Amino acid sequence: MATKAGIGVKARLEVEDLLYAYADCLDHGDINQWTDFFTEDCTYKLISKENWDLGLPLGTIFAEGRGGLLDRIASVTQTSVYHERALTHMISNTRVLGVEDGVMEITANYAVLETLPNQYTKILNSGRYLAKLVRAGDGAGEGLKIKELICVYDSALVPASIIYPV
Amino acid sequence: MATKAGIGVKARLEVEDLLYAYADCLDHGDINQWTDFFTEDCTYKLISKENWDLGLPLGTIFAEGRGGLLDRIASVTQTSVYHERALTHMISNTRVLGVEDGVMEITANYAVLETLPNQYTKILNSGRYLAKLVRAGDGAGEGLKIKELICVYDSALVPASIIYPV
Amino acid sequence: MATKAGIGVKARLEVEDLLYAYADCLDHGDINQWTDFFTEDCTYKLISKENWDLGLPLGTIFAEGRGGLLDRIASVTQTSVYHERALTHMISNTRVLGVEDGVMEITANYAVLETLPNQYTKILNSGRYLAKLVRAGDGAGEGLKIKELICVYDSALVPASIIYPV
Repeated sequence: MATKAGIGVKARLEVEDLLYAYADCLDHGDINQWTDFFTEDCTYKLISKENWDLGLPLGTIFAEGRGGLLDRIASVTQTSVYHERALTHMISNTRVLGVEDGVMEITANYAVLETLPNQYTKILNSGRYLAKLVRAGDGAGEGLKIKELICVYDSALVPASIIYPV
Repeated sequence: MATKAGIGVKARLEVEDLLYAYADCLDHGDINQWTDFFTEDCTYKLISKENWDLGLPLGTIFAEGRGGLLDRIASVTQTSVYHERALTHMISNTRVLGVEDGVMEITANYAVLETLPNQYTKILNSGRYLAKLVRAGDGAGEGLKIKELICVYDSALVPASIIYPV
Repeated sequence: MATKAGIGVKARLEVEDLLYAYADCLDHGDINQWTDFFTEDCTYKLISKENWDLGLPLGTIFAEGRGGLLDRIASVTQTSVYHERALTHMISNTRVLGVEDGVMEITANYAVLETLPNQYTKILNSGRYLAKLVRAGDGAGEGLKIKELICVYDSALVPASIIYPV
């Protein structure tokens, strides 16, 4: 992996821009645009820290490729029955760990705050993003895309249920 | 609205500096200096996401112009009776959406943590800042000022009461 | 203290890099490397806002010099008996207040989220970092080190106990 010194300050700012746009899409945008943040051959995984630390593969959500993401979107928009809820992603501590062969490895911490009707705001899910990012190669010049996003969450207990991706 | 590409990386950093100074004023500073962050003709509104999404105008706090802000400060410092409390603003996900005719539109997510005497820390209010910022035109060269700040908060339930602006 | 205008935008980014690496060490790294973030003659203090505001010196953790930090690490790794826990630092609102005689004064807000086995995630500790940073003078070119870190936390009540430094 390339040394951190070779990355420069703008990389983190660009990664933060990506993550904040990603979160805005889930919190206040159109979930059908969620796939636009990923490459065609992407991997998305939501997994508990307990399983992750033990090397156990089972995740709460696991999607391969944009098709897998579309399945998840279909579940949210067409299949599942759930209360309306307000979601607010707090993303912090974004770090660029390195770049190698055009793949940028990053981490960030996140807390998703959830508010159900007539309830107080609570922490739905907190933990760490572990992601691999690449430049979009489709000529659209759209900048960074997510090739792999692993959300390692702290609590094996999930209050109620996780409807939306994290 | 101008394209995002024309904004550049420094704009977000400058906006973050403004928001962090704003929060420091409310959390640890002198609330009498709160008005300094706004233009003379400013608007400040604290409104629930429920009302905001339905287009209903009613806000929990609504102040027009610096005079309106001063009213609010008078309420906090001279009229209201309340417990001392520790407040900590966590501001994240700051995004510059665009600049047009010298007005910068931005969003950010926030969570205000409140601690009352002999109680645990809880989430008092979380949500999103929607703001319009302008360059100070008063020759003081103080940089960005808030022309409009709308705080859209997630939970229609407020634990105890909101004393300070958010 | 030097004026803020003389500091420039890169200073905050560099401070954030330091704080995020610091937090990663405590959340997911090897606590034995915690001392590497400090100067030899450092001070580390964890103190309630109540005591801090009253000018009372008593802190929950107080360590002088790297030797003091090593004592704390020994307590965590060899002496104390406690449950495994997941920790996630959310650090935001980083501000560079000034630089004088090579010492950079900064503040940031933090919330440490803690998850015990089979429990929901809760706010363990939130508050403010007040820190003095210096350039490493040991020829290693490692950048900023912490000369003084005071963690002023909001709630005099601590759920269960604080095992790790904040």
